[in-house]
Amino acid sequence: MKVMPTIFTRIINGEIPCYKIAEDQHFIAFLDINPLTEGHTLVVPKVEIDYIFDLEEDTLSKIMVFAKKIARAIDKAIPSLRTGIVVLGTEVPHAHVHLVPMHQGIIDFKAKKETFTPAQFAETARKITEKLT
Amino acid sequence: MKVMPTIFTRIINGEIPCYKIAEDQHFIAFLDINPLTEGHTLVVPKVEIDYIFDLEEDTLSKIMVFAKKIARAIDKAIPSLRTGIVVLGTEVPHAHVHLVPMHQGIIDFKAKKETFTPAQFAETARKITEKLT
Repeated sequence: MKVMPTIFTRIINGEIPCYKIAEDQHFIAFLDINPLTEGHTLVVPKVEIDYIFDLEEDTLSKIMVFAKKIARAIDKAIPSLRTGIVVLGTEVPHAHVHLVPMHQGIIDFKAKKETFTPAQFAETARKITEKLT
Repeated sequence: MKVMPTIFTRIINGEIPCYKIAEDQHFIAFLDINPLTEGHTLVVPKVEIDYIFDLEEDTLSKIMVFAKKIARAIDKAIPSLRTGIVVLGTEVPHAHVHLVPMHQGIIDFKAKKETFTPAQFAETARKITEKLT
């Protein structure tokens, strides 16, 4: 059975644009275009695996280390309580980690999403990438 | 300044009981006693660090691998869509990963918590630990 590539694979392949934050051999990070808060970023393994716990141990061991670099940059660029982590896996069948700058004690996926213009998204991505070390 | 140990450190030290799922050199996993769903488990690093992204890379690289073992056991013991991951860090100043068996598309921390008797918690812990490999 031929399965269509996920939207994330198409982003990884450059077929769909994104507001990219960082990329290495194993992962890509880009802004969620339906963000809960400014700076809401997705960390996506390049391997197309649906369920995060089906990732191989080597990839799993690297994902939080990669996420830490992104979260530190988000924390410097976007004032918040801290950056929270959510993995649901029910939206797109390609494992992804939500990094969400938190302005309250919880992360509420039922909350109304923020809307930003392309210029605003680009500026948010610029502010975060500038803080990457 | 002498700081009181966190409730999680007191659990790790055996001063406060828990429904333990697993433990190794770096981490402990036990049932959340205010669970969103049956099987809701906390994975806690033994080092007392408030913000998960302040954990050293070595610990961060191991936490998801440890969590995977727990999540696989939860998935076998508790029928659900899958096990989601949430790290908020605003409740207890000691980093912890929520592993939550999901019965809907999101994890709603505003939802009413489940209440279980000690016997029910013990039975849930037994069912999960039985599936650890």
